[in-house]
Amino acid sequence: MGLIVQKFGGSSVADAERIHRAAARAMAARNSGHEVVVVVSAMGETTDDLIQLAKDVCEYGQCKIPPPKREMDQLLATGEQVTIALIAMAIHAQGNEAISFTGGQIGLVTDYAFSKARIQSINKQRIFDQLKAGKIVIVAGFQGVTPEGDFTTLGRGGSNATLVALGAVLGAEVCENYTDVDGIFTADPRIVKKARKIDRISYDEMLELSGLGASVLQTRAVEFAKKYNVKLHVRNSQNDRPGTWIEAETRNMEHIVVSGAALKKDLVAVTIKEVPDKPGVAARIFSEIATHNIVVDDIIQTVNDNGTAFISFTVEHGDVTDIRPVVDKLISDLGGKTQAIYRDDLCKVSVVGVGMRSHTGVAKRMFEALADSSINIENITTSEIKISCIIKKEDGHRALQLVHDAFELEKAR
Amino acid sequence: MGLIVQKFGGSSVADAERIHRAAARAMAARNSGHEVVVVVSAMGETTDDLIQLAKDVCEYGQCKIPPPKREMDQLLATGEQVTIALIAMAIHAQGNEAISFTGGQIGLVTDYAFSKARIQSINKQRIFDQLKAGKIVIVAGFQGVTPEGDFTTLGRGGSNATLVALGAVLGAEVCENYTDVDGIFTADPRIVKKARKIDRISYDEMLELSGLGASVLQTRAVEFAKKYNVKLHVRNSQNDRPGTWIEAETRNMEHIVVSGAALKKDLVAVTIKEVPDKPGVAARIFSEIATHNIVVDDIIQTVNDNGTAFISFTVEHGDVTDIRPVVDKLISDLGGKTQAIYRDDLCKVSVVGVGMRSHTGVAKRMFEALADSSINIENITTSEIKISCIIKKEDGHRALQLVHDAFELEKAR
Repeated sequence: MGLIVQKFGGSSVADAERIHRAAARAMAARNSGHEVVVVVSAMGETTDDLIQLAKDVCEYGQCKIPPPKREMDQLLATGEQVTIALIAMAIHAQGNEAISFTGGQIGLVTDYAFSKARIQSINKQRIFDQLKAGKIVIVAGFQGVTPEGDFTTLGRGGSNATLVALGAVLGAEVCENYTDVDGIFTADPRIVKKARKIDRISYDEMLELSGLGASVLQTRAVEFAKKYNVKLHVRNSQNDRPGTWIEAETRNMEHIVVSGAALKKDLVAVTIKEVPDKPGVAARIFSEIATHNIVVDDIIQTVNDNGTAFISFTVEHGDVTDIRPVVDKLISDLGGKTQAIYRDDLCKVSVVGVGMRSHTGVAKRMFEALADSSINIENITTSEIKISCIIKKEDGHRALQLVHDAFELEKAR
Repeated sequence: MGLIVQKFGGSSVADAERIHRAAARAMAARNSGHEVVVVVSAMGETTDDLIQLAKDVCEYGQCKIPPPKREMDQLLATGEQVTIALIAMAIHAQGNEAISFTGGQIGLVTDYAFSKARIQSINKQRIFDQLKAGKIVIVAGFQGVTPEGDFTTLGRGGSNATLVALGAVLGAEVCENYTDVDGIFTADPRIVKKARKIDRISYDEMLELSGLGASVLQTRAVEFAKKYNVKLHVRNSQNDRPGTWIEAETRNMEHIVVSGAALKKDLVAVTIKEVPDKPGVAARIFSEIATHNIVVDDIIQTVNDNGTAFISFTVEHGDVTDIRPVVDKLISDLGGKTQAIYRDDLCKVSVVGVGMRSHTGVAKRMFEALADSSINIENITTSEIKISCIIKKEDGHRALQLVHDAFELEKAR
């Protein structure tokens, strides 16, 4: 039997009882003959508590500038380190053998992008040695080190990036992602009551859904899983039911026109007006933004009569503090009448499905569903397998419900 | 001006306010022209909280065996890592530059004695580079790494070991140890109300006092300071008054017959009776204990008429769990009637002073003080500069008071 990588999110390791439940799952897999590597997040609200500690210190110092990201990562990396030690102790308490590793201890080296670093390499030898010695290996998710050994964190959902990277590097049979939900749903069940758990979904669909606001899996983790063909199984840590398998596209999947719908709420639209319409200006804007590691999507550019351009894009809400000084600097460099407008009263509702490639009328059905309920579409973007509409934030929940109904996503396929 | 290493204990960094106060002290030293390295402990009760977490996990698993020490160190090392990041943020918030390092990040390599590791080397280059760049360097106390990068902790008072080791390696002008007391006292002021702060004390006296229960400084830290002639200044982080200087012995010190008195309460006496009186047995017993990294003091051996020996020694209370299986194994190996008795109703009161070397009558004065108040002395041990009496635990506080009075330690010299 092969190697399994299991990942337990923060709510699945929030206290001694849940830590033992996670440990029991790892031991069950081990005792059924698998080699087992476990990736864990920080316990419960630990990461938020650490962020609060940093805020307290900065506020006490009446500081206007954010704390250095290197120090923030130094602080946050402790969260997962606590969990790995406790999981190893729990397994030890049950008479099995385990060993815990921080990112650095398995040579999980990243780039220097503190707070959203990317994995560059993993030294698998130390893990294989311990597996061979019969141990369950526990690895801290969400973190790595720079080549100099400074702690980095992998950004939101970074533990999933660790899960998939380990799955790929170690050649895992499956990566099990244990969360507090039953799997991936046709829409967020907190908003759409009739939302249904999806049994199987392709990497591409999951990629679109993740990028569009489905919070269970981070885009990056799915990209990596697709690239290395690592099977992901998203499951509930509180029960033994099968969850959602995320895997390579199969013929059967094409019959499903729309697999799921998503709503992205934490969105800020940045519009730069009166940009000089010269070659290279857009490249300069987005390369400058990229050097600050800010993720941008939905770029739109149109050219006005007066020879100036209008460039609009969206960023995640968390990046607003970072992007403002970058854009302000760019505007002052560009000179003239160039100005930036920030809008945070928007959201994005989307439908995703590989079947769209071979079926027509999907867009029409979506636009009609929104129009029939007087929801105004501010902007539309599409890909081969998704359609997104940017609408007013206040219409978000209603729009998601309408779209879910329009495509009858609650019905099993 | 030279380099200063400052160390702040847990109570001096317990909240945002105190973290800023510690940061302010570091910045004041920096701004007066010194290069500054800061060593910090875990905040307030953090280490105890982490130990409680481990206990919760082990108790939930109804486990009888203690958690693996490697995992315990993995857990505990997070405490100091949190503090270093926060101190760096506080300094940053005040507009100065700082960078934090874990033990591993400055190559503080130790042996493999998890939970009481010894420092083997420190890579000072990274610290010097950052000092040269104008930064205040913050280092996590109490921790190091094995050559493989596994976290180790340096045992009780380990942050002081880090302080002195850095002072030695970096060639510091002085190591300032900030605590919540004004310095070293002639006796524990919580027990002896008239206890007086000592202005200057020699390494040897401090060594004896530390070994005898004065809790401010760990024996190991003082040993190291003496070896590398590092000046220590124990100060109160809450005020600017000078504290106690610990330094090489001067001629003036010889005039002081007794510098201080101490009481060691957390003591367990182990007596092994009916030990076969053959060459090598004592060596075997203590080498076996040493391999378990248990510190032993006050060894007494006497030989009985029947050709068996009686070996008695004391260990710290915290080591009892570790020593019982070691001694039990030894006894069963030795066979015969050999048996062990554990006594924890004892304590040790001591007086220390370099002047004892040239003054007589110190022992007489001490024994009389105890005898006059009907305190029975179970055992006496002496060195060139100290006299210790093992007495009943219940007499401890009274004995310390009596001895302090007998030598008039409350009077300034």
